[in-house]
Amino acid sequence: MTKVFLDEPDIPTHWYNLVADLPTPPAPHLHPGTKQPLVPEDMTAIFPMGLIEQEASSERWIRIPDEVQEIYRLWRPSPLHRARRLEQALGTTARIYYKYEGESPVGSHKTNSSVPQAYYNKLAGKTRLTTETGAGQWGAALAFATQVFGMSCDVFQVRNTYDAKPYRRMLMQTYGATVTPSPSDTTEAGRRLQERFPGTTGSLGMAISEAIELAVQDPNASYALGSVLNHVCLHQTVIGQETLKQLVVFGEDLPDYLFACAGGGSNLAGLSFPFIRENLEGRGHVDIVACEPAAAPSLTQGEFRYDFGDSSGMTPLLKMYTLGNDFVPDPVHAGGLRYHGMSPLVSHCYHEGLLRAIAVKQRDAFAAGILFARAEGIVPASESCHAIAGAVAQARRATEAGESPVILIGVSGSGQLDLPAYAEYLTGDMLDA
Amino acid sequence: MTKVFLDEPDIPTHWYNLVADLPTPPAPHLHPGTKQPLVPEDMTAIFPMGLIEQEASSERWIRIPDEVQEIYRLWRPSPLHRARRLEQALGTTARIYYKYEGESPVGSHKTNSSVPQAYYNKLAGKTRLTTETGAGQWGAALAFATQVFGMSCDVFQVRNTYDAKPYRRMLMQTYGATVTPSPSDTTEAGRRLQERFPGTTGSLGMAISEAIELAVQDPNASYALGSVLNHVCLHQTVIGQETLKQLVVFGEDLPDYLFACAGGGSNLAGLSFPFIRENLEGRGHVDIVACEPAAAPSLTQGEFRYDFGDSSGMTPLLKMYTLGNDFVPDPVHAGGLRYHGMSPLVSHCYHEGLLRAIAVKQRDAFAAGILFARAEGIVPASESCHAIAGAVAQARRATEAGESPVILIGVSGSGQLDLPAYAEYLTGDMLDA
Repeated sequence: MTKVFLDEPDIPTHWYNLVADLPTPPAPHLHPGTKQPLVPEDMTAIFPMGLIEQEASSERWIRIPDEVQEIYRLWRPSPLHRARRLEQALGTTARIYYKYEGESPVGSHKTNSSVPQAYYNKLAGKTRLTTETGAGQWGAALAFATQVFGMSCDVFQVRNTYDAKPYRRMLMQTYGATVTPSPSDTTEAGRRLQERFPGTTGSLGMAISEAIELAVQDPNASYALGSVLNHVCLHQTVIGQETLKQLVVFGEDLPDYLFACAGGGSNLAGLSFPFIRENLEGRGHVDIVACEPAAAPSLTQGEFRYDFGDSSGMTPLLKMYTLGNDFVPDPVHAGGLRYHGMSPLVSHCYHEGLLRAIAVKQRDAFAAGILFARAEGIVPASESCHAIAGAVAQARRATEAGESPVILIGVSGSGQLDLPAYAEYLTGDMLDA
Repeated sequence: MTKVFLDEPDIPTHWYNLVADLPTPPAPHLHPGTKQPLVPEDMTAIFPMGLIEQEASSERWIRIPDEVQEIYRLWRPSPLHRARRLEQALGTTARIYYKYEGESPVGSHKTNSSVPQAYYNKLAGKTRLTTETGAGQWGAALAFATQVFGMSCDVFQVRNTYDAKPYRRMLMQTYGATVTPSPSDTTEAGRRLQERFPGTTGSLGMAISEAIELAVQDPNASYALGSVLNHVCLHQTVIGQETLKQLVVFGEDLPDYLFACAGGGSNLAGLSFPFIRENLEGRGHVDIVACEPAAAPSLTQGEFRYDFGDSSGMTPLLKMYTLGNDFVPDPVHAGGLRYHGMSPLVSHCYHEGLLRAIAVKQRDAFAAGILFARAEGIVPASESCHAIAGAVAQARRATEAGESPVILIGVSGSGQLDLPAYAEYLTGDMLDA
């Protein structure tokens, strides 16, 4: 047996909210003006109440609306694979499993949150969502979700990526979204940024400013964020919940190690939070390892303090590990990990010792990604390669020590649209960052 | 319920050979020199005996080796989806299902045959496979399969595609294959072709010549073909066998219509042959519709006669519907359908009235593909869009007539690497061919 799906009725009916089980409460988000804890009214200009409530909720289980469950079924439950061929290639004594989110319509875990975000906005009467995207995974996920609910979608994509990596832009357009390279002439923020930084190729921070401006100006529009915030982490917990059940089908107890890549943190949160609960309740000793890029090492080298989520200081203040909101990472390929901060919930867990972190250089990540692709057939997303690199190193250490741990890897997406990065690695031209 | 997988032990254990059930035997392949029916010895220079036997077999069920089944489990069983959102978008009275092969490691059905082909060659002691590829689906599938069995792989890719659509080349290289633009300087055939056609951007026929030359010269190498031949159609029958079982899980009898795209014919064969058996045994009246591109309409406009499988006349003579082996299709995006001929088995079925065919223009195909992507979330391969166009037209006719047929679509692959074609359609620049 190498792959386990669950029966369709077994997809999760609730999201799991780790806040209910945390030994100490996470610090609240603060209003950027008053520096006081945010109240729901502070967020109604850009978020619908359904998501605002989730952002502040301490309920353990939050029911997934039937309409969202129905769409989840297009790709959920996602498969858990035993990586037998990778084990053979490594000659390891470890047993390796991977949870694969790349079979979603857009090829990544992002649809787990874009669908409920579109749903709650639709419920609130919104007809349009705005967002920013870098490499395009989140933009594509939101373009898909808005299409499903008959809403329109405006995506501001960092200009550099818009021009250089056009496939995900085409994917967003295929789903019917309007994609604008950022900074653009269509918003005041975009025009100001172009004056201030002539010839700039853009950044996520600039694109966020444009997307928020558009949402605030249009009463029918909301803004949507693809990671970092509590409600996004919440939505992703379907990943870990399914994995817990699937490991049982394989006859395994809890894993000894869990490796997941971490940029904004929602993918790591989604896989690991249900396992952190197992640890907290004394059922397991899962060593949870956040794998961040050496080019944006917020957990391993950042400070734990309040900071803005965007570059221009428009968002609430979030208590998180941060490299400073003016930090600009090297242009590594894992666009989804190039973020100055880290989800406040993941940051809190790290600070409390509920998970640990390692920083992975991109050449090491792609070396592991190619090993994985040649063994398992699946080409992992650039981001996922970081988790695989962490797991492969752990498997090698276990083999040297004569141990047989169970290692679980979160493979957050497919690398089919990241192939130019693989080509760059193979020709030896990849930046050693 | 919108998606059905089978339990893993339910993947097929045998390939289904339609030849055993055909009312009249198909015409044999002929030796290009003697014009006599091929004998196994004629093919041993380029194919291993395991595949030669399958090519000529009239056994109904041929056991799938355990080693092949094990690799099939990486992506099989593939899902059968009820296309509820597409039905809603069409406002149709029809019930529409689609079998999706795009979750295979390379994103298409081609791995169903590349894996057994690599296996039988490995068994025969071969260490290297050579092949040609156009858009790259088959090349990527063989690169994956040879990697799994520790063999090397040489792919000659039509130069035009090698340069213009680099993603699948990068995918082949990620799997470790050597990819050479064809015509090349590395073979005598390639050098001669370049002399004869200075500045040519290549063709599948030229690439086949180079791949066969390389295989014939190296006793450790074989040549592998990705469609057309009987053994390739045989391997693909796992698709239709699974679908028969999955329809039962949905509570359906046999479908009223089956639409699948047809280029060389192996995808159509794989889905439809098990259903042709149901028809022949009196259990169903499935209307099987081959959807070919208007740019290469071998069934609807070709002649049923012996012709070469390649442009330069190196292959055996095959009795098939053909547009002539010097036919050059318009440069439509569905590279996998740009073939002058049609599988002899599919041709035989068409000639005997066991299936029918329609020709679809590529703009109509992509219009249907975008409708499908926006409804179902999955972006279909350029080739698969042709089947969807046929099915959508049928659903519209059924709605007008107040009928509620069950329509089954074969979606042979993912269009994630075909996104430039979608972009071209959306900007209105697509060739009306």
